Formats: sequence, C-alpha cells, structure tokens
Amino acid sequence: MVIVSKQNPLVKELSALLEKKGRRERGTFLVEGEKMVREAVACGMDVRRIVVREDYAGETFDALPRVTLGGGAFAAVSSEKTPQGIAAEVALPVREVRPPAGRCLLLDGLQDPANVGAIVRTAVAAGYGDVYLADCADPFSPKSVRASMSGVFFARLMQGAREELLAALAGVPVIAADMGGEDAFSFRAPEVFCLAVGSEGRGLSPEVRARADKTVRIPMDARTESLNAAVSAGILMYALRTSY
Amino acid sequence: MVIVSKQNPLVKELSALLEKKGRRERGTFLVEGEKMVREAVACGMDVRRIVVREDYAGETFDALPRVTLGGGAFAAVSSEKTPQGIAAEVALPVREVRPPAGRCLLLDGLQDPANVGAIVRTAVAAGYGDVYLADCADPFSPKSVRASMSGVFFARLMQGAREELLAALAGVPVIAADMGGEDAFSFRAPEVFCLAVGSEGRGLSPEVRARADKTVRIPMDARTESLNAAVSAGILMYALRTSY
Repeated sequence: MVIVSKQNPLVKELSALLEKKGRRERGTFLVEGEKMVREAVACGMDVRRIVVREDYAGETFDALPRVTLGGGAFAAVSSEKTPQGIAAEVALPVREVRPPAGRCLLLDGLQDPANVGAIVRTAVAAGYGDVYLADCADPFSPKSVRASMSGVFFARLMQGAREELLAALAGVPVIAADMGGEDAFSFRAPEVFCLAVGSEGRGLSPEVRARADKTVRIPMDARTESLNAAVSAGILMYALRTSY
Repeated sequence: MVIVSKQNPLVKELSALLEKKGRRERGTFLVEGEKMVREAVACGMDVRRIVVREDYAGETFDALPRVTLGGGAFAAVSSEKTPQGIAAEVALPVREVRPPAGRCLLLDGLQDPANVGAIVRTAVAAGYGDVYLADCADPFSPKSVRASMSGVFFARLMQGAREELLAALAGVPVIAADMGGEDAFSFRAPEVFCLAVGSEGRGLSPEVRARADKTVRIPMDARTESLNAAVSAGILMYALRTSY
C-alpha cells in the first residue's frame, strides 16, 4: 500500500521530525539516504521503520518494517532538496549524563547545526567518544545528522544544562579553546581531559570559562581573527590527541 | 537618489554578480555586511562602489562612490537571507599563475563553495598564502566569500586548468592527502611544499595523484571513512606546518 496523502497521520508524524519538538515528542529522528540508513542498521541503532518513496529502486532492508509513500508525501517528510527516496526512522539514543570514559568534548553554545554535525563526525574520528552539548543546536536535526555522516550513531551525545554537564565533568581537566591561551601544538594534554569549544561569535560562556583549568589557542596569522567552528574544533581535537 | 527598480541597469549588473558568468564579465564580486566591507577597504582591495539599502544606518564609507537602493532592489543583489543592508563591489583580484612563495595549497575538485571559503580562511591563518584551485567552486561566489570571512582578500587565489597549475608547481614537493598515506602527524614536511587536497566524494584527480611526491593521512577511528573537506584540510595544514 502506498500512502499518498500528506494529511495521513503517519506522514504528519514523520514530517514533525523535521523539528526538535516533534523529535522529542515521538522519541525518534530521521536518517536519510541509502548509505546512512545502511550504517544505522549495521551499527545496531533501534530502527523503527524504513520509509521509501514508491519509485525508489535501491536496497530496501526487507527485514525491517517498511512504509511506502507517494512522491508528495515523501517530500513532506524529507529535508533534502533532491531526496534519494529512502529514510529510516530511528529511536533517539537516550544518553544519561555521566562522566567521560576518556578524552571528551564539550560544545558550548554552538548554534549552527551543520557545524555541530561536522564536529561530531570529527570527534568520532579523533577518539573523543563522549560529547557534551550545552546550549547547542540539536545534533539530531536533519542538517546535523547529514553533516555528521554516521557520527551521531557512534558518539555518545549528551545534551543538558551547563551545570549538569559541568557536574559530570567534576575532576576532569577542562582545556578550553581561547585566543589568549597557550599554543595548542606545544601543550601536552593528559590522557583524560575535556576539550571545551565555544561559538565563533561569542566564544565560551562565563560558566565554562570559569571552569577551565587551561586555555589553548590555534596559532594564526595576525590578519585572521578566528576560524570556522568545525575547522577549529577539528584542529584542536587532533592537536591535543596524545596518541599520535 | 534612491534606485528602487530591479530593472535599473546597475541593479541588473550587480545582481548578475551572484553568478560566476556575471562576475567574470564585469570583473568584480560583491562583499556583504559591514565587517567584511570594512576589511575590504582597510586591506586595500580595489573597491568600486559601496551599495547601501536606503534604511541602512551603519558606517557608509563616505570616501568611496556610493549607490543607494530601495529594499526590493537591494534584496535582488544580495545573497543573504537577512541582509544587513550594506555591500561593496570589489574588483576581482587578477592573479597570474606563478610558483609559490612558501608552503601552499592545491585544491583539487572541491565543489562546495562554503568548504572552499572555509579552507581559504584557514589557509590564511595557517600561512598557506598561495592557493591553487583546480576544478573547484569559484572562491568569489557569495557563499564562498562569506565562509572565507576576509580570507579571499589575503590569500593569493589562482584558478586554472590542472596542467597549468601543476606546471607552476614544478620542482615543489607535492604532499597529497590520501587515506593510504603516512600519518600526517609523524611526517616532517620541508619548508616549501604544496599540500594537495581532493574532494570528499571523489578524492584526488589522477593527474594530481600522479604528481604527488608523498601521501599523508589523518589517523582516524576505524568507523570513520572521511572528514568534512574543510575540517580535514584544516587539520592537515596545521599538521604539516613546520614552524609551530
């Protein structure tokens, strides 16, 4: 059976996943494109259903519940300009805020979803498995999920109030990115630490700044004031890795 | 005098700058927002005119020729969703393709304008002043200019055919980013070299790969296949800097 109406209750619920409120209420998020869907399935995410457009001709993951939508209904649930025609509805990973297992990352007020996603992608690559998000764009938004590639499946993403996140980091050295800090490439980080990165525009919040044990900077040409937040987080994550 | 019509010849010419063809024909590009305009003026770019919206209340750079547009006409020349109301028309820097003055960057087939701009921004910060662009998104597009911050004013951007760019790099060691290369963090780069970076999807072109003297990689968790192109270029530029 093909659902063609955008007024169909399931289509309405799936399109509500485009917004944070809808994701929270339903407890799921949407992953688009064959590659990402395959990765979600392969890495054991709780995939609730596969959503395909009626003309979709690729892999359909037949072991999973599936719903088929007409072109207009699929477009209503998709966030892509030119959707591939396949998506998966995946349960939001519920992550209790807890102390980190190793080196970790605290994102402080990053509001650009594509930057948040790209940073999550880099965090997984660089071995920062625990990612704390204070006052940031939702990492499960379509833009962030897409930019993370499959990073949102692998990182342990913890969203919460600053106080709650900082409480979980009690006893963990916090190394914060700041223009006035020490050269990150000459600084030797301990084995367990938290790298804190603020937004491009506003920098660190006063609470995170007050908690920082150390500040580090990326050495830069004098004509440059700052770097893109995802680029600078990536450079710092690698600069502080001790296990080259 | 305020120009209100979108059919006004100047408005039509300025809005043609949104496309590469228009920029090439007119030999200029548009820089938006007070901060970027101020930087363009301060660093001696050839600013042809300031373009302001009639309700704009900020700095207007009175020493320069100025044109005032109505809201609709300004929106037609702007690429911003919520324009500040000020822009500058700046002459495209004409850069003869020549050998690099020091460490430099070759971008090979990068089609995302925001990534190209973010990379130019990082290149200036990291001291890769000469940037060669082969088969890339135009760095003077609005998205790229915005992402570069003022990077497009400071970097020496050279666009050309691969053969021409590679000819200018004769005798310069080319160190190319590739998954199969040596760990970039243990590799010691010479003082003058060219870092070559390919696209996320397709990697390096056969021509650039054939020219590479060395390949380097960013060490990554096995679950990660790649990083965002701007993030990975940034990490590599800093990994290969010899002068920390």
